[in-house]
Amino acid sequence: MSADIVPLPQRSDRPPSLDPMLALTAHGMNSVNAVILDRMQSEIPLIPALAGHLISGGGKRLRPMLTLAGAELVGYNGARHHKLAAAVEFIHTATLLHDDVVDGSELRRGKTAANIVFGNPATILVGDFLFSRAFELMTEDGSLKVLKILSNASAVIAEGEVSQLTAQRQIETSEERYLQIIGSKTAALFAAASRIAAVVAECDERQEQALDDYGRNLGVAFQLVDDAIDYDSDAAAMGKDRGDDFREGKMTLPVILAYARGGEDERAFWRQAVRGDRTSDADLEHAISLIARHDALVDTRERARHFAQRAVDAISIFPDSKARQAMAEAAHFAVARGY
Amino acid sequence: MSADIVPLPQRSDRPPSLDPMLALTAHGMNSVNAVILDRMQSEIPLIPALAGHLISGGGKRLRPMLTLAGAELVGYNGARHHKLAAAVEFIHTATLLHDDVVDGSELRRGKTAANIVFGNPATILVGDFLFSRAFELMTEDGSLKVLKILSNASAVIAEGEVSQLTAQRQIETSEERYLQIIGSKTAALFAAASRIAAVVAECDERQEQALDDYGRNLGVAFQLVDDAIDYDSDAAAMGKDRGDDFREGKMTLPVILAYARGGEDERAFWRQAVRGDRTSDADLEHAISLIARHDALVDTRERARHFAQRAVDAISIFPDSKARQAMAEAAHFAVARGY
Repeated sequence: MSADIVPLPQRSDRPPSLDPMLALTAHGMNSVNAVILDRMQSEIPLIPALAGHLISGGGKRLRPMLTLAGAELVGYNGARHHKLAAAVEFIHTATLLHDDVVDGSELRRGKTAANIVFGNPATILVGDFLFSRAFELMTEDGSLKVLKILSNASAVIAEGEVSQLTAQRQIETSEERYLQIIGSKTAALFAAASRIAAVVAECDERQEQALDDYGRNLGVAFQLVDDAIDYDSDAAAMGKDRGDDFREGKMTLPVILAYARGGEDERAFWRQAVRGDRTSDADLEHAISLIARHDALVDTRERARHFAQRAVDAISIFPDSKARQAMAEAAHFAVARGY
Repeated sequence: MSADIVPLPQRSDRPPSLDPMLALTAHGMNSVNAVILDRMQSEIPLIPALAGHLISGGGKRLRPMLTLAGAELVGYNGARHHKLAAAVEFIHTATLLHDDVVDGSELRRGKTAANIVFGNPATILVGDFLFSRAFELMTEDGSLKVLKILSNASAVIAEGEVSQLTAQRQIETSEERYLQIIGSKTAALFAAASRIAAVVAECDERQEQALDDYGRNLGVAFQLVDDAIDYDSDAAAMGKDRGDDFREGKMTLPVILAYARGGEDERAFWRQAVRGDRTSDADLEHAISLIARHDALVDTRERARHFAQRAVDAISIFPDSKARQAMAEAAHFAVARGY
């Protein structure tokens, strides 16, 4: 228990926003974007074309932003983190490209997904290319500690994705298993992206760990809300098809809670749906109504709020600053998204 | 021009063999295999199951063997190269897994391919896992020079694969373009695997480059013969379906030569075949007869022999030794394979 809990920023005045974080990192993000654009080039024109389709597709670049914000928080004055933040975004982009092939996605960030435009083969291979480029960038920077953190995070992400695959269409997936999966597939990279800021700034282990904790909890909150949004907003807001997770039989928390809290009739419906026998729009509407009946979306967001608050508290070991406030507000924004 | 050309080993007595190379590296390969087995483990059982399907599938592990042979050649006495050789094999395995998805392969090393047994999604993701593990292993070793060589090789491999994809079904692919593609997709990793032996042994730049040259030329020879075998041996010998390249419209050298040397009728056939309009067994037999008519297989092997000889000559800067003889014979074996 700490007396130094960071207060919620002006919650009554305006909803939490990502704007302070964007302002904090705007200058650095220009440098990161320059590295990204420069290093996605290749003599093979298909590579920048495909990579650019996703990279210029309007993602928030939240993960590199975490590296930059973390660097601000710890008062780092160098420029090494720009290359490393670009490496983080390349790892993330490679993961998204492979995910879209794995899931057969049709939309990503509101645009036709790369696998649909360019085909699965090129999408897989350009993912591999960006992944290799990420390690080239890290190697150029030369920190073995950063390389260790990000190569480990990459392996954990892949493990999380495989774990999610084996949990797919498994109605008995528990909340604990689900949290483990999103901890690997999403939160590991958020944690690593934050942590490396402390590494380049040569902070002590406690500060490194605090940034890791911030990123990890933020990542869990972020994924929980993503999974909630798949059942409560329209495709345009999210940039992906609403109901994707439903049709793919993904066991996300809204479903896990609705199934756990439902009666036998409802459970029978969920079993059919998760098996893939209920994929119509009417079935999706029914699923949404069951989720609402048991407050499963509200409670998914409540769980997210818990992790966001842990993220905020993790950075309370640093003195109050614009950076700390921006990072705290970003955590609250992660929870409020899509409302 | 060098007076120190390595003579062909007892060519008249017996066909060139991989046995001296296998004997030279047998002890070290036990250590490499132990690292491979240890580091492909994961709490997610699907990962070792899928990785093991390919890894225990009887591959020759030629690439890690090159690292070990190179270490023998330069008299390295440490053990660092075992981990790095395992990393090389993980990169190669990740590439094969992704290739099989990209090509929709049905056989690999004489067994049902992983993508058929486990599905494309898991195959893609376990590839990503092994790729990450490779970088973890390199990071543990701690040589930034090795990391640079292998992260660059990985990016080049991906570029080569994309380049091959864009050349697919393009009848106008030239021999030069083809050599560029196999230089990237195959020879880059052969070169890197050899070169890192000189790095761990702290050799001078000239020796490093000689090992790089050996591996690169050997890799080109190896791929040329692989591409020849697809038109002249049965699936059992190769562990893959004969005619795979033909049905996928891959522009390999046998086809490039047969097309270049053919009359208008023959060219019309090749255009249809490469477009995908000639995929029957009879079409394959016709293709094989056209290739034979123009000595395109014989000459593909002749080209391979040229690169194998360059590989042999590249290591003539090292004093004669069992290692050098084994490596030279391995190069000749690469050309004689499948006869």
